[in-house]
Amino acid sequence: MELKNIKAFGTAAAEAPLKEMTIQRRAVMPHDIEIEILYCGICHSDLHTARNDWGGTIYPAVPGHEIIGKVTKTGAEVTKLKVGDYAGVGCLVDSCRTCDSCKHDLEQYCLTGSTGTYNGKEKYLGTQTFGGYSEKIVVDEHFVLKVPSNLDLAATAPLLCAGITTWSPLRHWKVGKGSKVAVVGLGGLGHMAIKLAKALGAEVTLFSRTPGKEKDALQLGADAVVISTDTAQMKSVKGKFDLIIDTVPNVHDVNPYVATLSINGTLVLVGYLGKLEPLLNTVPMILGRKAVAGSLIGGIAETQEMLDFCGEHNITSDIELINMQDINEAYERMIKSDVRYRFVVDMASLKP
Amino acid sequence: MELKNIKAFGTAAAEAPLKEMTIQRRAVMPHDIEIEILYCGICHSDLHTARNDWGGTIYPAVPGHEIIGKVTKTGAEVTKLKVGDYAGVGCLVDSCRTCDSCKHDLEQYCLTGSTGTYNGKEKYLGTQTFGGYSEKIVVDEHFVLKVPSNLDLAATAPLLCAGITTWSPLRHWKVGKGSKVAVVGLGGLGHMAIKLAKALGAEVTLFSRTPGKEKDALQLGADAVVISTDTAQMKSVKGKFDLIIDTVPNVHDVNPYVATLSINGTLVLVGYLGKLEPLLNTVPMILGRKAVAGSLIGGIAETQEMLDFCGEHNITSDIELINMQDINEAYERMIKSDVRYRFVVDMASLKP
Repeated sequence: MELKNIKAFGTAAAEAPLKEMTIQRRAVMPHDIEIEILYCGICHSDLHTARNDWGGTIYPAVPGHEIIGKVTKTGAEVTKLKVGDYAGVGCLVDSCRTCDSCKHDLEQYCLTGSTGTYNGKEKYLGTQTFGGYSEKIVVDEHFVLKVPSNLDLAATAPLLCAGITTWSPLRHWKVGKGSKVAVVGLGGLGHMAIKLAKALGAEVTLFSRTPGKEKDALQLGADAVVISTDTAQMKSVKGKFDLIIDTVPNVHDVNPYVATLSINGTLVLVGYLGKLEPLLNTVPMILGRKAVAGSLIGGIAETQEMLDFCGEHNITSDIELINMQDINEAYERMIKSDVRYRFVVDMASLKP
Repeated sequence: MELKNIKAFGTAAAEAPLKEMTIQRRAVMPHDIEIEILYCGICHSDLHTARNDWGGTIYPAVPGHEIIGKVTKTGAEVTKLKVGDYAGVGCLVDSCRTCDSCKHDLEQYCLTGSTGTYNGKEKYLGTQTFGGYSEKIVVDEHFVLKVPSNLDLAATAPLLCAGITTWSPLRHWKVGKGSKVAVVGLGGLGHMAIKLAKALGAEVTLFSRTPGKEKDALQLGADAVVISTDTAQMKSVKGKFDLIIDTVPNVHDVNPYVATLSINGTLVLVGYLGKLEPLLNTVPMILGRKAVAGSLIGGIAETQEMLDFCGEHNITSDIELINMQDINEAYERMIKSDVRYRFVVDMASLKP
């Protein structure tokens, strides 16, 4: 197969900084779309993968799965988009398309394993997949999203991961008018959860560990902020929430939040992959038919639904636009939660 | 208020054996039904309460919340049953009737606290409530169940707790034809979960820690038995079950069972009140939108639905009938799981 050299930004080892490199993309096949990448959001997973925090990173690694670009080439069979259209690519670039999950538009739960946009297995080349910190990407049209024309392109990029990751549980647990939703953590995911839950008609509360975020949270659409380390405040919302979206990526005690779930309420973890510590107490779960669940990004149809909804409601992410060359500094700032609320790379900075 | 002396069997202290005693019941009020108790099932909660295992037991304690009897008196306003009818009483004898849970037929999740059949607070007398190890009980008609006429009365008693505790999650998580259900633990609750899930049309698997229960499980209606300590067997059911009903009353590792849940599957704990140990791993929960939940008995309308369903499908509990005087020995045997599958007290043994 003909390969194409592409300029990218990636890392050769867990301890090495990211730097410019050349990768290879496959030629455009009948169902493929080639996209010139204009903007790429920076997700915590990018950093964890670059540094092999979860193990399993194949080097060189080129992160980036919040991709917005312009179609530069289409395969003969492509019907979804045409050259010149704006296009989005999220966390997935392929899946088996035949399993029970895929048949139900749940490609993220593909039973044979979906293909991640980076550090996945490139189906045709056998190499690792390379993500959006690059000039161009070639993706099967099934995994390419249409971008609403009214939205700011750079601020739309984070919808492809942070947006869909919070949208999917909001929809799965049927949040709408009258729902009471709480969000744990005000980062890239948390700020999207507030915006989306509010636009769906819910009453939205932010849980924050420290004071100081009230003004920002209310501006984003939250109706209230509860300081989770304040016992009196936590008591005042006991049994209140139908759904809690917990976006915290580090180990933390979920028991205080479970206490604030209503009867039949669910706390859904979207950020923390690991063991729940301290121990989860089943007593309030049994006494109130409460659940602790997990949720992973979202399916492709659902991602399109979210983008269309954001177009209708004029929702994008609050971002800080940076150059590709500033990525290593951006990672350091992300670790300190020093970003409101998502870094997005202006890929023009990668051009000569 | 006029009180009535009633012969009962109970205990005066956590360390004392149960013995005959006299308790007092309230007079029959306009909405009350007086029931002569014919049979009372023995639940693990009886033992835990008698021995103050959970703390909070008020002595003297008279356990028993799987009650079947005959109506001997009705208040002036009672319409549900008449003198001579068979009647059932389960784990609840009152609730606030006005909160959101009560209004939605979820009296077990009453927001101001429902009144347990024993060790609750007797609304009119201010004393603790006394359960079914007694000659008679007086209960508001709302909390009295009608008993299908075709069922064996003694074997119906355990439906009032073991039956409804497993029925409620089966219904809440919409088990029906085509569902794949697994049951953890083959005791009073587990054997009812198998019978009810099977009658609802599900494919039912029993998880058992040790071999030897295959024949019994299949006779109860299970389609398969998986030895949970056998890695190969557990691997063969990875990702299979829509719902797992975990009836184990002691601390145990639920992680191996979570691995056998399907995408969107739920493991519901109905037996174990305490901290989940070892630590619950969120990774498979997030990667498969799986949930760990709890469920408590069931509401009154749901209990009647379950009894009617059991009448239609001729479902009762497998029991061992004992005399009231053998209760202390029965408790010892229960601790050793030496009962197939529920003890029921023949209350005629309490008569002179």
